[in-house]
Amino acid sequence: MRNPIHTTFRSLMQPGRLVRVAGAHDALGGLLAEKAGFDAVWSSSLEVSASRALPDASLLTMTEYLEAAANMQKALSVPVVADCDSGYGNNANAAYMVHEYEAAGITAISVEDKKFPKMNSFADRGNSLVDTGDFCRKLDTVKNAQSGSEFFVIARTEALINGLPVEEALNRAHAYANAGADAILVHSKASTNEQVLDFLNRWERRLPVVVVPTTYPDWSADAMAAAGVSAVIYANQGLRATITGLRETFASILAHGDTTKLEEDIAPVRDIFALQRLDAWQALDS
Amino acid sequence: MRNPIHTTFRSLMQPGRLVRVAGAHDALGGLLAEKAGFDAVWSSSLEVSASRALPDASLLTMTEYLEAAANMQKALSVPVVADCDSGYGNNANAAYMVHEYEAAGITAISVEDKKFPKMNSFADRGNSLVDTGDFCRKLDTVKNAQSGSEFFVIARTEALINGLPVEEALNRAHAYANAGADAILVHSKASTNEQVLDFLNRWERRLPVVVVPTTYPDWSADAMAAAGVSAVIYANQGLRATITGLRETFASILAHGDTTKLEEDIAPVRDIFALQRLDAWQALDS
Amino acid sequence: MRNPIHTTFRSLMQPGRLVRVAGAHDALGGLLAEKAGFDAVWSSSLEVSASRALPDASLLTMTEYLEAAANMQKALSVPVVADCDSGYGNNANAAYMVHEYEAAGITAISVEDKKFPKMNSFADRGNSLVDTGDFCRKLDTVKNAQSGSEFFVIARTEALINGLPVEEALNRAHAYANAGADAILVHSKASTNEQVLDFLNRWERRLPVVVVPTTYPDWSADAMAAAGVSAVIYANQGLRATITGLRETFASILAHGDTTKLEEDIAPVRDIFALQRLDAWQALDS
Amino acid sequence: MRNPIHTTFRSLMQPGRLVRVAGAHDALGGLLAEKAGFDAVWSSSLEVSASRALPDASLLTMTEYLEAAANMQKALSVPVVADCDSGYGNNANAAYMVHEYEAAGITAISVEDKKFPKMNSFADRGNSLVDTGDFCRKLDTVKNAQSGSEFFVIARTEALINGLPVEEALNRAHAYANAGADAILVHSKASTNEQVLDFLNRWERRLPVVVVPTTYPDWSADAMAAAGVSAVIYANQGLRATITGLRETFASILAHGDTTKLEEDIAPVRDIFALQRLDAWQALDS
Repeated sequence: MRNPIHTTFRSLMQPGRLVRVAGAHDALGGLLAEKAGFDAVWSSSLEVSASRALPDASLLTMTEYLEAAANMQKALSVPVVADCDSGYGNNANAAYMVHEYEAAGITAISVEDKKFPKMNSFADRGNSLVDTGDFCRKLDTVKNAQSGSEFFVIARTEALINGLPVEEALNRAHAYANAGADAILVHSKASTNEQVLDFLNRWERRLPVVVVPTTYPDWSADAMAAAGVSAVIYANQGLRATITGLRETFASILAHGDTTKLEEDIAPVRDIFALQRLDAWQALDS
Repeated sequence: MRNPIHTTFRSLMQPGRLVRVAGAHDALGGLLAEKAGFDAVWSSSLEVSASRALPDASLLTMTEYLEAAANMQKALSVPVVADCDSGYGNNANAAYMVHEYEAAGITAISVEDKKFPKMNSFADRGNSLVDTGDFCRKLDTVKNAQSGSEFFVIARTEALINGLPVEEALNRAHAYANAGADAILVHSKASTNEQVLDFLNRWERRLPVVVVPTTYPDWSADAMAAAGVSAVIYANQGLRATITGLRETFASILAHGDTTKLEEDIAPVRDIFALQRLDAWQALDS
Repeated sequence: MRNPIHTTFRSLMQPGRLVRVAGAHDALGGLLAEKAGFDAVWSSSLEVSASRALPDASLLTMTEYLEAAANMQKALSVPVVADCDSGYGNNANAAYMVHEYEAAGITAISVEDKKFPKMNSFADRGNSLVDTGDFCRKLDTVKNAQSGSEFFVIARTEALINGLPVEEALNRAHAYANAGADAILVHSKASTNEQVLDFLNRWERRLPVVVVPTTYPDWSADAMAAAGVSAVIYANQGLRATITGLRETFASILAHGDTTKLEEDIAPVRDIFALQRLDAWQALDS
Repeated sequence: MRNPIHTTFRSLMQPGRLVRVAGAHDALGGLLAEKAGFDAVWSSSLEVSASRALPDASLLTMTEYLEAAANMQKALSVPVVADCDSGYGNNANAAYMVHEYEAAGITAISVEDKKFPKMNSFADRGNSLVDTGDFCRKLDTVKNAQSGSEFFVIARTEALINGLPVEEALNRAHAYANAGADAILVHSKASTNEQVLDFLNRWERRLPVVVVPTTYPDWSADAMAAAGVSAVIYANQGLRATITGLRETFASILAHGDTTKLEEDIAPVRDIFALQRLDAWQALDS
């Protein structure tokens, strides 16, 4: 019924290929991303916390973020990349995190150079970064904690998010590469991709680079690939579409007093059944 | 930040009033229903299981359905009505269920006269009903297990779903009323509301009646109220809108290669922050 | 810090060897069993439910039994054998169970030929058995649901517990072997091992046999091995020792008014630290 | 079956009375403490983490500590006092913690003036304390977050644990009292109660004082009461007895090869059934 064997994220990261990743917060969102053709699913802290109506500020715990990621992975053939914030504490927390995520079948995580508790990158109030050396020790701890060779660790620098120059992002990225990271995620909340392009131009290409074009939506996948990006995460568009869809649907029901008109715009119940693989499950007891 | 004090479902059930309830599977969906103006939120087994990409067939356990309901209730001021399927087993299971739901702050549940494990009401293969007497004993157990007077138990009959005549639904409903139920949910998967109207006409009105117009979407709220309905559950329209929204969004990203055009159709990131009450939470540490 | 690579139960089941298994309900109990020299740990439904002060009657759900088993396995190098009761429902539930247990790293389970919800085997009121054919179909479903070849399924017959003759236990055991079971657990609550010995003498040895000598404590491991037993589960002695130890300790504190005398009888705090591997975890941040 | 109505901790804290509290990590331990005559149960972080074979160093998350506390409280008539470490992060985390614990029926918590992630108080490596002012703001946040008037917040100072003089503990305790704490827990790992007695002598008695005599076991309850202590927590003796009991039991099984002799020393299976209230649960389906 379910497919416990899934592709690892590492196997997707091939030179010259742009891996496309969609954000989600539950198995259904992940499944729709997979069916749409995405290569992987981003278990987004922003999405998971929003689904609980809580801020993306380390209020939910690793337990809940892991549960969300694991629930997605169990329903998917494509790999989940788990947004692990800053690693949920110090080095011991980060090592424990790796044990738990690996045991749950997750093959790729992202950890970022921020303090715990974190605040979402797009929130007004910035996070202070941790020292480069401290984060390198955390990355080293993370890589030593993994038991299998497939586990893939994306080191995410929030230097640009914190208003620091591209130079600082590069210094950190190079240090993180030396510390054992498998890829670098360079995040920016500028309204254009200029900073990230600058980073890519000056990056020595020792590791794949991952980008998250939330605030520069006009950057096309082709242009990313040409600029040397290895993976792109569309981190929260699904959540934002969900909010819009639910708002319109709930408003329509109350405004019209019936759902006749709404029926045309929403998936039929049989589509739910198909996504649940109802027939296959029912066959087990027939 | 959060509002642990919420209205009870019992307090909403006033004569002459139609209580409007929207289905959801997570706190975000519940919050959007509340903000749209719904009086209560239905923690739908179909939605919760679909969010996990699993059939609505008692594969997920009470633990997970309760967690979903409790996570919604903690984020809401309106009451959650928990879809408790057939009570998760026999009478002991049902009593334990009441203890657990009440302890989690849930003030209303629905239990139905089907066997465990259940199958979704709209699935092709029917469920066999349990004996009326057995279900009455379960309802009696449920009512004796509650500790507070506010707890509200909706007895749901699947007689019509199982192809039995309205007479049988009425007999069961009257027996369930005698056994202590606080309201009756009469469910039908006919393509019109004819059966349910017949039920309402012949129902002795000793208890409020709840309906779920999934397959007769043209039945207006005003007409329901006129026919004597006390509460209506729009059980899965939100989920179906979510599926459509995610499908279109993921397809758009891959088709266009960028998200510029998509930005016009989806909620901005600041709407996520507002739903998360980010400012209020941030103020605690400023 | 933790050892995610553990022995599989299948690898332990070698001809001529008696595998000794100790019951536990949490990682600490499992770890003490491993350190004492047990070959495997039984994640006992009786123990897990008792640790929650609830009867062993399917009130806790698969979610909680799985969590207990997984928490043990993550702390151990020896394999956990999960007591999976009757498979938590029908065939679909059993297939889902296999997916979930396998995904959590469990390599062996036991399923028994009782109805859901179950009642503990030693409780006065018996359980009615399910039909042999129905249980064979469940075993077939279970074996088809596993994804790896290491997963080991023990078919447990409760025929003797239900007062049926050894002949019936043998008939069922042979049918379960044909249906694909990897071993047979023959359970009895007689005050001697006579029934089980009779079973063993008449068993065609096509599969290993597992025994649980709760009510015939004088059966020695050497005698079991000589009689052809492959594995023995000491299912609840640890729990019963815990109850006695806690009773005496709590009574002593209240009776004496201080804990000076008690200190001589209980493990020092440093033993807790050693079991937690505190030094190794602390070293990660030094 | 279960008693959802339990005494609040606040109602126990009467002048002139010594409230006796026993540490536990699961409902069974809590139930045995209640049956022995303890007034309340301490949901100990050390015990809960040890039961998972993990150090008491904030590796397990608030989710798991809360679940343990809630599972205990649901089985008890006496109140659970939840060991909430340092509040699981900053002020927002602490406010969220109060919402979650209160929603789960917990009526008393302890928060301590250490940084997150914490290290157990008896571990060799000390924790650096947080500033007094910062912790006062956290206490203020905590008290503002509670919704009911019964919720009881114990402010725990680790000043003595960190090698600071009694003067500093007193300064902090007075500040915490001003910030709204309901009681002060003064913790020491000295081998005598001298420091704590000094604290009590110089304490202005504006709030009740709680002690944890792990390292000064000879301090009698009568002497504590005479010295002005309001509550005593025997925090981990139950866990230490459990370790000893399991070690001896598992060793005995392997050494003797049978459990005949062991049977005399451990509780019978019927005692498990009695603690589970098996008869009462079974009666629901008879």
